[in-house]
Amino acid sequence: MIYFDNAATTPICHAARGAVLACMDAPHFGNASSPHALGLTAERNIKSAARDLAGILGCQAAEVIFTSGGTESNNLGILGAARGRRDIRILATNQEHPSVIQPLQHLGYDVNFVAPSEWGAHICEPSFASPAKTLVCMTQVASETGDIFDVPHYAAMVKAHNPKAIVFVDGAQGFCKFGLNLRDVDIYAFSGHKIHGLKGSGGLMVRKKILPIFHGGGQQKGIRPGTENTPGIMALAAAARFQWENHAAHFATVSEIKGILSELAEELPDTFINKKEQLTSPYILNMSFVGINGETLTSMLSSKGIYISMGTACGSAKKNTPLAMLGLNPERAASAVRFSFSGMNTVAEASQVKEVVRECVEILRKQRKRRGRG
Amino acid sequence: MIYFDNAATTPICHAARGAVLACMDAPHFGNASSPHALGLTAERNIKSAARDLAGILGCQAAEVIFTSGGTESNNLGILGAARGRRDIRILATNQEHPSVIQPLQHLGYDVNFVAPSEWGAHICEPSFASPAKTLVCMTQVASETGDIFDVPHYAAMVKAHNPKAIVFVDGAQGFCKFGLNLRDVDIYAFSGHKIHGLKGSGGLMVRKKILPIFHGGGQQKGIRPGTENTPGIMALAAAARFQWENHAAHFATVSEIKGILSELAEELPDTFINKKEQLTSPYILNMSFVGINGETLTSMLSSKGIYISMGTACGSAKKNTPLAMLGLNPERAASAVRFSFSGMNTVAEASQVKEVVRECVEILRKQRKRRGRG
Repeated sequence: MIYFDNAATTPICHAARGAVLACMDAPHFGNASSPHALGLTAERNIKSAARDLAGILGCQAAEVIFTSGGTESNNLGILGAARGRRDIRILATNQEHPSVIQPLQHLGYDVNFVAPSEWGAHICEPSFASPAKTLVCMTQVASETGDIFDVPHYAAMVKAHNPKAIVFVDGAQGFCKFGLNLRDVDIYAFSGHKIHGLKGSGGLMVRKKILPIFHGGGQQKGIRPGTENTPGIMALAAAARFQWENHAAHFATVSEIKGILSELAEELPDTFINKKEQLTSPYILNMSFVGINGETLTSMLSSKGIYISMGTACGSAKKNTPLAMLGLNPERAASAVRFSFSGMNTVAEASQVKEVVRECVEILRKQRKRRGRG
Repeated sequence: MIYFDNAATTPICHAARGAVLACMDAPHFGNASSPHALGLTAERNIKSAARDLAGILGCQAAEVIFTSGGTESNNLGILGAARGRRDIRILATNQEHPSVIQPLQHLGYDVNFVAPSEWGAHICEPSFASPAKTLVCMTQVASETGDIFDVPHYAAMVKAHNPKAIVFVDGAQGFCKFGLNLRDVDIYAFSGHKIHGLKGSGGLMVRKKILPIFHGGGQQKGIRPGTENTPGIMALAAAARFQWENHAAHFATVSEIKGILSELAEELPDTFINKKEQLTSPYILNMSFVGINGETLTSMLSSKGIYISMGTACGSAKKNTPLAMLGLNPERAASAVRFSFSGMNTVAEASQVKEVVRECVEILRKQRKRRGRG
């Protein structure tokens, strides 16, 4: 099999697997709240994981909160920052994931979804500097297209024009894949299973006071109560270290892979790369083979052991909101598929997938032509 | 080592470990929302886990929701049931866990915490039958004392007097350990790591419409969005099957273990079993060795490789709310420790712990006497 759906989820890496195994048994399986040696060991492990992540994020270990994944991290970051603050004004890109859009809409405030190209003008408007509470949401890498949003640039611009604004960043598709200056970012959300960690794990860098979204035994300073998921936490830290230490090599590999598949846009007729920004992540390639239904191609490739996606894997495939916001015509949107890579993929896989996709596209287009004639 | 802190957390069982390992790699690591064979496999696995749990709970598979653990399950059940319903009246036992008490208090409604002995009279009051929305919260087994609350009896009584009332049960310490008739229960919350599953996993049986506490890609009918934690879910189902299929044998084992340790209450002076109800779980034994600080004894045993707890392990050790509500005098409350067992413990372990506890208690009491003289 060839797995090119790494933006949806990833297999676990060797280091994270070892961490999970260690946390299943003595002396590492204890409850971090327990008042004995096994509890202390669990607590020490969690603190060590927080230090590792803080080192990568460039923050304090005390600013790292562990969650059950990207969706919870986005919800805790957004709802936690907005609740308890009145008259919040919200600015977000029009490239956000449903787990950012939905909590924003749930808050009941007006949300201004603004295209990346218009952010500069928007932030520079005099009204942006007003003392109203402002929550700014940006996605580091758009999950469907791989478009990169210039987080450090816009975060600095936001802070320059409204120092009290809270800057939230959904880092699910960027975490540990690129260097990122979080100096002007207050809340940064990430997921474990997108970087070869364990499903059910995620985290949040939090530099502003936020309120919890659920309540209980006071763990993690009460911001995220519940028995700490030590296997998930240790696997998250191990996977992050693995990804971060190898990010330059991984970047080179996935860039080459993306380059090979991108050639199809030149070699096949009516074939396009879907993106809006100049800068896109080499981990994600969104293409349209016009005239072919993206679902049909995805399914045909699946039957050959090649796994890709249409839209995102997170339940929004049908709406395709970010793609629609790119202004794609319906035919191009309907034929969109997403290839997403990992440093564990190989260039040989890319060459193989390229040829299989070419064959599939030619077969499906011939079938369509024949149906058109018949 | 001897681990008698199973009410705090448990090591993973063989079956659950196998499930976690299987879900880390192909063909089981996929995202259940992905539109290819790996996604379908993940989706099928999750449905199969829901069916297994439904079989144990006596409900429909569609009524099973997966969460990140007991704390989230309690919060989702309580907040999800109460939000969107106005003028809620809340009745709860005075034996609830912080992850039940805290969301109840967070709702901002008056909560009536009533001792189990007074529930009957309370429910039979004519005002209880009024059409006001009523949420009733009961803990199947109190985590500190093991007191068993007669859920089927009181749930039926509640429904008889107010058929529209919503009955919520925190099953964290009872799930898969006893047979339980959930006929009159609307929402039942449970945790994976309390029954030899993986940390970061839990579930909810839900028979009434509830609102989500976070928002995203629409997974699990939108009640609990986020990429499904397949390793946690499969381990939860495997652990539940293991516990449930062996519950009679485990019950016999832990009953014998509890019996052996309970003998200390007769053999040592000023030694008491802390409980309120006639019926307690054989999985939990709460004792006071008066004159000895519970923390000191716990720590002394830990240094000898025996792991027990004071109060609960869930952050409330200092408040000891349920113990305080039992009406224990401060000296007896301060000396309380909790032994909690699992079917994987042995009778030989109990005999060994009994002798070590006896020695520790005698040493600590002698030291105290000497200090008193000095």
